[in-house]
Amino acid sequence: MDFPLVVPALVRRARTLFGHRPVSGRRPDRSIARTTYASVLERTRRLSTALAGLGVAPGDRVATLAWASQEHLEAYLAIPSIGAVLHTLNLRLHPDDLAYIVNDARDRILIVDESLLPLFEKFRAQTTTIEQVVVIPSAAAGSDAGDARDVTANTGAPAHGFLDYEALLASADLSAHLEPVIREDDAAVLCYTSGTTGRPKGVLYSHRSIVLHSFSQGIADSLGIGERDVLLPIVPMFHVNAWGLPFTGVLFGAGQVLPGRYLDGASVLDLIVRERVTLTAGVPTVWLAMLQELDKNPGGHDLSALRTIAIGGSAAPASMIRAYQERHHLRIVHAWGMTEVTPLGTVCNLPAGLEAAPLDEQVRYRARQGKPLPFVEVRGVADGVEVPWDGQTMGELEVRGPWVARQYYNVEGHDSRFSDDGWFRTGDVVLIHPDGCVELTDRAKDLVKSGGEWISSVALENALMAHPAVAEAAVVAVPHPTWDERPLAVVVLRAGAQATADDLREFLAPSFAKWWLPDRIEFAVEIPRTSVGKFRKSVLREQYKGLYADD
Amino acid sequence: MDFPLVVPALVRRARTLFGHRPVSGRRPDRSIARTTYASVLERTRRLSTALAGLGVAPGDRVATLAWASQEHLEAYLAIPSIGAVLHTLNLRLHPDDLAYIVNDARDRILIVDESLLPLFEKFRAQTTTIEQVVVIPSAAAGSDAGDARDVTANTGAPAHGFLDYEALLASADLSAHLEPVIREDDAAVLCYTSGTTGRPKGVLYSHRSIVLHSFSQGIADSLGIGERDVLLPIVPMFHVNAWGLPFTGVLFGAGQVLPGRYLDGASVLDLIVRERVTLTAGVPTVWLAMLQELDKNPGGHDLSALRTIAIGGSAAPASMIRAYQERHHLRIVHAWGMTEVTPLGTVCNLPAGLEAAPLDEQVRYRARQGKPLPFVEVRGVADGVEVPWDGQTMGELEVRGPWVARQYYNVEGHDSRFSDDGWFRTGDVVLIHPDGCVELTDRAKDLVKSGGEWISSVALENALMAHPAVAEAAVVAVPHPTWDERPLAVVVLRAGAQATADDLREFLAPSFAKWWLPDRIEFAVEIPRTSVGKFRKSVLREQYKGLYADD
Repeated sequence: MDFPLVVPALVRRARTLFGHRPVSGRRPDRSIARTTYASVLERTRRLSTALAGLGVAPGDRVATLAWASQEHLEAYLAIPSIGAVLHTLNLRLHPDDLAYIVNDARDRILIVDESLLPLFEKFRAQTTTIEQVVVIPSAAAGSDAGDARDVTANTGAPAHGFLDYEALLASADLSAHLEPVIREDDAAVLCYTSGTTGRPKGVLYSHRSIVLHSFSQGIADSLGIGERDVLLPIVPMFHVNAWGLPFTGVLFGAGQVLPGRYLDGASVLDLIVRERVTLTAGVPTVWLAMLQELDKNPGGHDLSALRTIAIGGSAAPASMIRAYQERHHLRIVHAWGMTEVTPLGTVCNLPAGLEAAPLDEQVRYRARQGKPLPFVEVRGVADGVEVPWDGQTMGELEVRGPWVARQYYNVEGHDSRFSDDGWFRTGDVVLIHPDGCVELTDRAKDLVKSGGEWISSVALENALMAHPAVAEAAVVAVPHPTWDERPLAVVVLRAGAQATADDLREFLAPSFAKWWLPDRIEFAVEIPRTSVGKFRKSVLREQYKGLYADD
Repeated sequence: MDFPLVVPALVRRARTLFGHRPVSGRRPDRSIARTTYASVLERTRRLSTALAGLGVAPGDRVATLAWASQEHLEAYLAIPSIGAVLHTLNLRLHPDDLAYIVNDARDRILIVDESLLPLFEKFRAQTTTIEQVVVIPSAAAGSDAGDARDVTANTGAPAHGFLDYEALLASADLSAHLEPVIREDDAAVLCYTSGTTGRPKGVLYSHRSIVLHSFSQGIADSLGIGERDVLLPIVPMFHVNAWGLPFTGVLFGAGQVLPGRYLDGASVLDLIVRERVTLTAGVPTVWLAMLQELDKNPGGHDLSALRTIAIGGSAAPASMIRAYQERHHLRIVHAWGMTEVTPLGTVCNLPAGLEAAPLDEQVRYRARQGKPLPFVEVRGVADGVEVPWDGQTMGELEVRGPWVARQYYNVEGHDSRFSDDGWFRTGDVVLIHPDGCVELTDRAKDLVKSGGEWISSVALENALMAHPAVAEAAVVAVPHPTWDERPLAVVVLRAGAQATADDLREFLAPSFAKWWLPDRIEFAVEIPRTSVGKFRKSVLREQYKGLYADD
């Protein structure tokens, strides 16, 4: 029974069983291109062969700097298929960070969207390892542009060392196609954490972890992905593998819709309707934006195919979950994950017993992050002691399992985030309910420690966002001479809506202890965001650190 | 990410997450005992500790000779948890075969139902390796019978070396509980094939294969088993691990119902209703029997919880699939498996596109055995060449995958059923449809070779069983002086129904080539069966081998 769990086994499965299933994507010109797995996998084979022809050997890193597209999916499959390591670069990082990451990873080849060449030029000079650059043309694959097109014409970059993606595929000598022996513990994918503090750190995913993670997304108590599905990952392919959904789609034959660079509410909604998407996944801000689109024209969109909107990346406000369910009959499924967890660790499905419960009760459960996936084990730890699963005691979430990292790539010495007994310290502070359902209360660094007690910034934010006048709210800890820290709320009001700080405190008062209420509430026109759409709280903390300096 | 896929990880998961989920079973006195995983797993820990106390070491074999019961489930979990090997003895085998199997496996401990002690006595003297016998009492666990009861009183067996199961659990010193390091490639379970020809052969399942096989039963395109389910395996726990369902239930927190020795249609139906079973699994004869019960009183049973009746072991007649769907709105899901495949290899779910199709078309699809599970790969081979997936060309099914055996246990030299490149030759003759759906046409040995052409005995049987007067039909090859072989049909008529051989041939005629029709149809009162309820065709072949001797 020595059958290895490797990415080529996924590809082989799709090739034999799912050739007819659809793959579509939004092109740079906003049009939609439609094809099938048969075509994608044929091109994948060509890309594998061509990369091997360029000298890519098992273990070598091949980087991508690209939006979600058919070509990016081909790279996802082709690179691990020859034992090389897919390294997805996060195009929202600072060019200096990108250069650092490329050099740290020792990327030999870069596959880059033509539209992102200007970004590449910003850090190209700092990179020391890239030998070849392959450019995915902005014009449609197989379009009239043909092979002869000069891909560097738009960018002014020198032609030396630049290859056209389509020409590369056309040049592949399939008679030379090789399938090297790959062991399941070999590295398949490399991702770097966004790095809100310190240098970005790399996480290497083995073939086995990718495969088992995909497997888990098919089970009924997870996302239940199968051949009937059509997946639309809004979480980008350059961010923790779009939750692994591109691999999962291949494993189970689910159709895939690749949104390109257009991730705004209206574009997402349009894709869901046109491609009859059944499952989509992204961070809460994406779904806040889509909710606004839906609310503009309730019932005006055919969402009959859509069975699940998966949310992760940060805790979604209960008010949004309720709004989707109540106003649009759409089911939000919360998940929790991290780069170090490939990324999904928990998924929140409503227990059978709650299906007939009042909406409030359902929403309260759905606002949690869910139970651990098979073989993922969780515990909450506070002051070195495991906390009880009582739904009340906060602790830092620690996880272990077959797709949880055991170390960072290329980091010398022991990292304190990995325990000696195989657990990863997530930095997320959670409650664990008696049924094993995990509820995110905060990032450890986002907790407010006031008078020796913890205040959850996420709980305050989500409560504020339930106020009808509030579009968005972020709560951060700011230094305080008496209380050590106090919570500060930064609030963006809805267009045309009005509310004072006192109104909002009054709104919060019934739900929280008095000392939890923010003394200061600032109004802003927007909240700064990280590269993946989460609130960038570090900026707010810096901006407001002197708030109580005069007290 | 070196997290091993081992049975103890399943147990740990259930202990932390699913303690409240139900386990129930029918006792020898037909009453139903109800408990929870929390209790089962507490007793499992006691059994593990007690077995280790008896000297059971990693790698040692512990045999069971038992019906489906809570205690048998405890043995399923406790034995692999200490690195020992669970060996389930098929109580329907001949005592000589049982003795051979026990000695071949080198079983050190036997856990036996009190009611099966008389069977054990029939082969006990021939066994050479058993050191301890643990008796599961017929009276309910924790009943008034207490620990002091003399378990040998009913059987007359000598008390020497016989331990009472409940007393053993009570004696466990939990402070001595150890969890040895288990690698995922270590053996967890040992099963012997029924052995219709030659000596039974053992198949060792690794922890990894058990775990991955269970994992696959949770995915949406397989059986989709999750925490909401309540499982009732009718396939016995002494036959390929009841399809692995006891392990799958533990992994996903599905409730389990253990039917004891009562596998008749009325008892099964009663359990489904009383325990609100959602998924049940067994061989076609079980479901033929239950169908008769249902037809006696249509609508008289509350089957509202039941979502799936899984069928495997041999091909189910389309007429039965239709009857369940048309008359009782129950969904039959076909599966294919073998001892060498842990056992499931394919599961037949209706493609989304067929959901609105006419019933005939749905039934035609559901009568197939389905697509391969994730990472199971299939091919049909005839005359050494892979046959096309055209739904027309017959070939022997070969499979490989992470839970497909690579060799038999304790068999010297190479077995021709395993190919050099890692495929297992199943002996089943199939068509593979263009979508990868496998359709069983026959066992290789049950094909009829008439005038150089193959005739499928299964196709004829299933067509005959669609005749309203036919209860059961078996078709076998009998030697023929001109045609080499001809098909003979042995038919059991329904009580009170009448039909002649000519009636039946006329009924078959529109569906088959003329030369497929059986020249001879014999009527019988019953068809001999194997230990697992399949037709024992070898007996019919022997009985009728001289049929054409005078021609």
